[in-house]
Amino acid sequence: MKAAARANTNIALIKYWGKRDEKLFLPMNSSLSITLDRFYTETSVEFREELKSDVFLLNNKPAGEAEANKVFRFLDNIRKLAGTKMYAVVISENMVPTAAGFASSASGFAALAAAGVKALNLNLNEKELSILARQGSGSACRSIYGGYVEWQKGERGDGMDSYANQLLTEKDLDICILSVLVESNQKKISSREGMKRTVETSPFYSGWLDTVEKDLEKAKEAIRNRDFQSLGETAEANALKMHATMLGAKPPVLYWQSGTMEIIHQVQSLRMSGIKVYFTIDAGPNVKVLCLPKDEQKVSDTLMKLPAVKQIITCHPGSGITYV
Amino acid sequence: MKAAARANTNIALIKYWGKRDEKLFLPMNSSLSITLDRFYTETSVEFREELKSDVFLLNNKPAGEAEANKVFRFLDNIRKLAGTKMYAVVISENMVPTAAGFASSASGFAALAAAGVKALNLNLNEKELSILARQGSGSACRSIYGGYVEWQKGERGDGMDSYANQLLTEKDLDICILSVLVESNQKKISSREGMKRTVETSPFYSGWLDTVEKDLEKAKEAIRNRDFQSLGETAEANALKMHATMLGAKPPVLYWQSGTMEIIHQVQSLRMSGIKVYFTIDAGPNVKVLCLPKDEQKVSDTLMKLPAVKQIITCHPGSGITYV
Repeated sequence: MKAAARANTNIALIKYWGKRDEKLFLPMNSSLSITLDRFYTETSVEFREELKSDVFLLNNKPAGEAEANKVFRFLDNIRKLAGTKMYAVVISENMVPTAAGFASSASGFAALAAAGVKALNLNLNEKELSILARQGSGSACRSIYGGYVEWQKGERGDGMDSYANQLLTEKDLDICILSVLVESNQKKISSREGMKRTVETSPFYSGWLDTVEKDLEKAKEAIRNRDFQSLGETAEANALKMHATMLGAKPPVLYWQSGTMEIIHQVQSLRMSGIKVYFTIDAGPNVKVLCLPKDEQKVSDTLMKLPAVKQIITCHPGSGITYV
Repeated sequence: MKAAARANTNIALIKYWGKRDEKLFLPMNSSLSITLDRFYTETSVEFREELKSDVFLLNNKPAGEAEANKVFRFLDNIRKLAGTKMYAVVISENMVPTAAGFASSASGFAALAAAGVKALNLNLNEKELSILARQGSGSACRSIYGGYVEWQKGERGDGMDSYANQLLTEKDLDICILSVLVESNQKKISSREGMKRTVETSPFYSGWLDTVEKDLEKAKEAIRNRDFQSLGETAEANALKMHATMLGAKPPVLYWQSGTMEIIHQVQSLRMSGIKVYFTIDAGPNVKVLCLPKDEQKVSDTLMKLPAVKQIITCHPGSGITYV
């Protein structure tokens, strides 16, 4: 009745932005990501007959109430699948530095889903595991797989056709993903809130939906052809479009800081000098920079010289779920 | 056969972004501006029988060919109205510092239209003068009037219903417009090119058109009510939306620099501290900051402390055409 799993976080190149169902985490659009090799969550789940309630320890401490309730509600989904009423002890370690600007929810719910299912000996395939993980946090459905991953939005109301699948393994195409951390003291608008406000109020949201499926096709073709330039260009344009949709929201949502802009211009200037380097930005001021391994040192050294850059952490494509 | 006129430049609070007719400068959307009191062009036009061609002196030097040809084509429009074939000597002085991030074309063609028409004793009213000026540069049609000015886009193919009119005089509502100049070494994409690319390729352009007429109504109501807060909020949101449409263009158009972002965040932070202060941004990295005269010193001092800010020039609403 006990199992442990590790899941890596992932970075979207074609962004998930907007939900069509808040409760089931069903997205308005399909997305595409790379699972990373360095930021992960490791979680053990033990179901025990004698427990009177669930327990959730996060980084060796009882988690906060909001955090814990999300986990307990997620355990309900697993219990339902298994037809059990047993409570569980969940112990998680997050190796996703908050400062890196990655949400730990993707790796967190992917690891929880995998460990919970294994603890109860449920026989789920990866697709079923992806559907389950999605119900904890949308992007968690992508972290089930390693390498290059697509999440097809699906059409059904129950979400049974909204899950991820692998396009390429982490060994098929190696690139560098530099998390470039910038100074910021801005009060953060959560991506959940940013998404919601955008979907409800931005005049650009329908334009986003019109264009994102085309970007996805372009990115998939680039991945098939191992065409890093086309993949990078498509990712960069897609990220700018996601941020553009937010600028139209009421009130506007602006995640960029001056450091964000410095990095954008430095990446563009490196590109003018002939290096294939691209950026993507999530719901925060940090920038993720994509380049080929041969250019990593040059790119990293150049960016590190910018006054606003605090730290750079380089990742590569990483594996999907592993059981530990 | 000789006359001289002075026209001030203007700053749009509801932006003109996109042409429906490149040759006649007919806009896709209506716009709203404030004519400023400090940046102007003074132009004298003298038609002379003996001239074999037009002559254009700009800031005491013969103008470049591209610049001169625009002026000569514009003179053709005036000659047509007057039924004359006489050539002219045009002498212009631009008091619009290029660094201030204002195009000199608005004040330039407004002054040229006014002086040229007067030199030939053509009896045009302000509406007709506005239509004429528009055919040199779209925003020039707004610089005919002082104070707060609306440019109704019109519907006709010949542009005869696309002209500006005054909403309030410069004396009716005094505010400060701070031109905040930032460091930049970016190669500039002209607003003409930026507009064109946006209209042709951005998935957000139709969303822009859906929303801009509503913004215009809100801004006009705010001006009627002397409601500076509502005017500022509407202008700021409208500027962000204009820039958002460009981020969706292929390739993306990004006029912002890190200094731009610094100023945006500083304005927002001043606002959190209770000061009514707003920003607007045109096709470049500089920011125009709007505040009430009582807050000017505080706002200016605070912005001047930002490392990226080079200079601040404060304007107020100014007059329309004057003959000199």
